[in-house]
Amino acid sequence: MDAPHPAEPAAFDPRILRRALGNFATGVTIVTARAGEDMVGVTANSFSSVSLDPPLVLWSIDKRSGSLPVFRRASHFAINVLAMDQIELSNRFARPHEDRYAGVPWRPGEGGCILLEGTSANFQCEKVEIIEGGDHWILIGRVRAFEDHGTAPLVYHQGSYSMVLPHPHRQPPQGAAAGEPADGLQSRLADHPYYLMTQAVRSYQESYQPKQIQTGWRPGEARLLMILNDGPARDMAALTRQADMPQHQVEHTLDLLRSRGLVERTPEGVALTAAGATQVRGIWALARSHEEQVFARFDRAQVENFKLVLRGIIAAAA
Amino acid sequence: MDAPHPAEPAAFDPRILRRALGNFATGVTIVTARAGEDMVGVTANSFSSVSLDPPLVLWSIDKRSGSLPVFRRASHFAINVLAMDQIELSNRFARPHEDRYAGVPWRPGEGGCILLEGTSANFQCEKVEIIEGGDHWILIGRVRAFEDHGTAPLVYHQGSYSMVLPHPHRQPPQGAAAGEPADGLQSRLADHPYYLMTQAVRSYQESYQPKQIQTGWRPGEARLLMILNDGPARDMAALTRQADMPQHQVEHTLDLLRSRGLVERTPEGVALTAAGATQVRGIWALARSHEEQVFARFDRAQVENFKLVLRGIIAAAA
Repeated sequence: MDAPHPAEPAAFDPRILRRALGNFATGVTIVTARAGEDMVGVTANSFSSVSLDPPLVLWSIDKRSGSLPVFRRASHFAINVLAMDQIELSNRFARPHEDRYAGVPWRPGEGGCILLEGTSANFQCEKVEIIEGGDHWILIGRVRAFEDHGTAPLVYHQGSYSMVLPHPHRQPPQGAAAGEPADGLQSRLADHPYYLMTQAVRSYQESYQPKQIQTGWRPGEARLLMILNDGPARDMAALTRQADMPQHQVEHTLDLLRSRGLVERTPEGVALTAAGATQVRGIWALARSHEEQVFARFDRAQVENFKLVLRGIIAAAA
Repeated sequence: MDAPHPAEPAAFDPRILRRALGNFATGVTIVTARAGEDMVGVTANSFSSVSLDPPLVLWSIDKRSGSLPVFRRASHFAINVLAMDQIELSNRFARPHEDRYAGVPWRPGEGGCILLEGTSANFQCEKVEIIEGGDHWILIGRVRAFEDHGTAPLVYHQGSYSMVLPHPHRQPPQGAAAGEPADGLQSRLADHPYYLMTQAVRSYQESYQPKQIQTGWRPGEARLLMILNDGPARDMAALTRQADMPQHQVEHTLDLLRSRGLVERTPEGVALTAAGATQVRGIWALARSHEEQVFARFDRAQVENFKLVLRGIIAAAA
């Protein structure tokens, strides 16, 4: 899986290229526009800031998109940067839908563009250029107004929705080890349970990741295999919700798993093959052995108390 | 802070626009090129996938960049997508440096472009177009080869380095509540301490975030205020390391804090003003009151055991 993929003489397998491109994490936006009575909106992660002076941004739209004629006619578009809790909105604007705006709260922005509520930020842009880019058009806009709400973002990485984790400090705070007095930032942080939680998640992931990578499966792929291990999936919408992946990504991933003989269509729906079931056992065995290794130093009562407190934190915030 | 910022009649304050653009989370790349003996590389988060057929990607480079002439001459460039543990490499290529490649392991890629080791992925591109974009040039490349290592990514959000958190499921697994047998995915996950940790971090963050947003401070801004509360900063490089932010972002952020009267230059270095010290007290008070609220349901022994286990997990993985 680590061998380089040369482009010549054969063309890339787009599934393999798409999978590699998924290594670049991005936020998720819904780009909106209005021309007369026609309102469009599409989920996009191709947003990029280009210039501060003048303020320019860009994004790309599939040439086959049914929303394209409206983006061509509209003088403006709005980039709505989605917040962590807007997965459903992202999915709604990512698939064909009769009326995407039905029940969705919105306000008009500059030049009639459409601002969604509850986002992290929006950028209201005058469309200044459309450039051909293969199977997409690149739209460049000049920011005419913006709103900055600063809420935690929805993140897209390797085909799955994610969130960012703050405080990713690699080194443990120095003060804690050196016995610095308790009024310093370092030792205060080192005793802060939330800070310790984020560090523990990071440490666990950093040691688990290299093992998981060796299996060759990405988190979203492993998750679909695990979900299908509980039984065939008839309902693609339910599978999409369970996996926290956009529907088109579930389809791409199932396609990849099918091409490797791990998943098949049966009268009951999409199901694991015998080879797929073997893979799932390997994925679980790896997860369990890493867990055993990390928790070996604690006794059963400590681990049970630990899980109890975690469940309490989850419940306290709900 | 939530009021819209119109562009007219006055131009935007670029500091405020940059802060708003930071709501869109991105991966971090180092884009490299070679022309003759000249090797360049710049840290960029403007990477974006454009097209699968043909395979096109883009990124933007500051027109003032000293590396620009080499990118103009070179026939190819490589996008190196950085992994979670490559903060130092990101910082190295983000600031002026005598010889950025000194001691950095690299291999030649297609068309002489430069592949860094330990990345999540790379895309080796033939340069096909350069488009003007305000104070930047937009470079479009056709992917000629790529490598996909799939490791956890470095993420950039609101001016700070971050990481992604997997398993962002909003709803607790249904099987757990319904007492499903222990062989289902749902109940297996619900009893998995790592899964519970990620859920607890998410829940804590989701309930804390709205309070933090009300203070008006972004995580990186609050972190700099807290670090400066321990004493003036003489050494900008040390401050940068402590904050886990790129140096230019530390400078932008200090600039913003200065403009609000919270930070000043003194003979001892960059220091908090009295108003800055008051802000820090508020930030800590908020963090403590949220912590007390979440942990109120546990007794002291439970919390101490909880922190002990977290420290053990951090140590186990180190």
